[in-house]
Amino acid sequence: MSGAASQVQGDLDRLLPILDAALTRPFCHGEAVRLGEAARYSLEAGGKRVRPVLCMLACEAVGGSFEAALPGALALEYVHTYSLIHDDLPAMDDDDLRRGRPTNHMVFGEGHAILAGDALLTEAFHVLAAADLDPVKRAEALTLLAESAGWRGMAGGQALDLEGETLTTYDLDHLRLIHRLKTGALLRASLEIGAVLGGAVPAERAALRAYGEAIGLAFQIQDDILDATATDAVLGKRAGKDVGRSKITYPSLLGLEGARKALNEATETALCHLASLPIQNSLAAWAQYLAQRAK
Amino acid sequence: MSGAASQVQGDLDRLLPILDAALTRPFCHGEAVRLGEAARYSLEAGGKRVRPVLCMLACEAVGGSFEAALPGALALEYVHTYSLIHDDLPAMDDDDLRRGRPTNHMVFGEGHAILAGDALLTEAFHVLAAADLDPVKRAEALTLLAESAGWRGMAGGQALDLEGETLTTYDLDHLRLIHRLKTGALLRASLEIGAVLGGAVPAERAALRAYGEAIGLAFQIQDDILDATATDAVLGKRAGKDVGRSKITYPSLLGLEGARKALNEATETALCHLASLPIQNSLAAWAQYLAQRAK
Repeated sequence: MSGAASQVQGDLDRLLPILDAALTRPFCHGEAVRLGEAARYSLEAGGKRVRPVLCMLACEAVGGSFEAALPGALALEYVHTYSLIHDDLPAMDDDDLRRGRPTNHMVFGEGHAILAGDALLTEAFHVLAAADLDPVKRAEALTLLAESAGWRGMAGGQALDLEGETLTTYDLDHLRLIHRLKTGALLRASLEIGAVLGGAVPAERAALRAYGEAIGLAFQIQDDILDATATDAVLGKRAGKDVGRSKITYPSLLGLEGARKALNEATETALCHLASLPIQNSLAAWAQYLAQRAK
Repeated sequence: MSGAASQVQGDLDRLLPILDAALTRPFCHGEAVRLGEAARYSLEAGGKRVRPVLCMLACEAVGGSFEAALPGALALEYVHTYSLIHDDLPAMDDDDLRRGRPTNHMVFGEGHAILAGDALLTEAFHVLAAADLDPVKRAEALTLLAESAGWRGMAGGQALDLEGETLTTYDLDHLRLIHRLKTGALLRASLEIGAVLGGAVPAERAALRAYGEAIGLAFQIQDDILDATATDAVLGKRAGKDVGRSKITYPSLLGLEGARKALNEATETALCHLASLPIQNSLAAWAQYLAQRAK
């Protein structure tokens, strides 16, 4: 195992048990039993937990404890999970497989899948609003989360992505815009929320935001490369969907080699931005890991 | 015009211009143009604006200015509008007409309708998180909003309502549970958020919460009665849908006369809870108006 991979594994071993134990808690005791099951089904599917882990590592990178970032970490995973459920719906990307299991609407029906997404999105704001946090930090974290998830962020990016399937011409600028909104905004917010909850000074917060921007780009390029090159069994979701639907991707615009070059550049940019932080090793390892991941 | 109706009209004339001017503002300048249009389409469809108006009146009823409640009022209308868009989807209630116009997905497609709902729900939390409010009041308002909209509130109630269509037996307790979650929770929160933002003392807040609970029940009973008795043209949406789908309603369980009796009782309960408040006339008029409304 490389140094980066073993650092990442160490962080996962340390952080995931705490995160996973807390994630499904809000959906365990309530009256809408079936909807709670639907929310837990997607939360329990696992996945890489990239956003919450990066949030907690960003908090540590500026000298905070990872526990201080836990409400933000949970909120980010709720938002991410809701977005997967809604993106998989027949009216959107129409996927039947996610994280190696049938998608939420295949198991619970479309109505409950829509509502499970809605409930997860709402719980994201609840867990932050009700947390025992400094009021100013809480308001900043909530604002960052809402900005990154909403019309000017992820939801807007998904809409542009849907529209892109019917465009006859598109270019790299439009692709970058879509990814900046659809994937980049929430990843960047993951780092910035961790920074805020860890009590970062402005320069540290800006550095983590820039790091988040760069790994967000790298993450998306690698996603596109994997869709073009990997198999269903490795990804745990349908591979080759982008090509099948003539979707705009980095490999389709730049070729595979061009996409790999852009991925390396984005990763280098991410690493540069870490230089000013008190603690860098975990986030550096994650930047390398995300660029090299096989699924 | 009765005294109640003219009081309600006066409140609407005073409050709606300010509310309507602010509602669409977050969806005017951004990159996801079509999604912004979809959000504005449903916000501009009008409707009764019951939740934001009640929020501002609750704020005034405890001595606050209605402007202090504006961020809460906007948030409530965003949540309500998102819920209408998602409830109208083919996988949920499958409605093609709402407020006298084609529903959001009929105009913008299902994908954009789902995302417009998501963006509106997210903006609800953004407008409150980013508002210039006392931090403690802001956190309380955000928590109330999330609790009332999420799994233990509106979203959970909509799930139970969907499931109810396939139940072979149901009773009044189950119907009350669905309505308490689906309609009641957000109406109650409208009053309680207004109370919090107006600086209510605990007894005032509890009174407004109880008033909200009672008019929430009255509102739903009247909704069911109207669905059973009014026409499409009057309602601006499809009438008679509940009967057509054997949906559980107050008239189907209690008969029309029984439902009207329950409506009157709930309205009387609401009026009783106003007795301890410094200013009562507007909220008293609204309780009567909501019970007598023809659409």
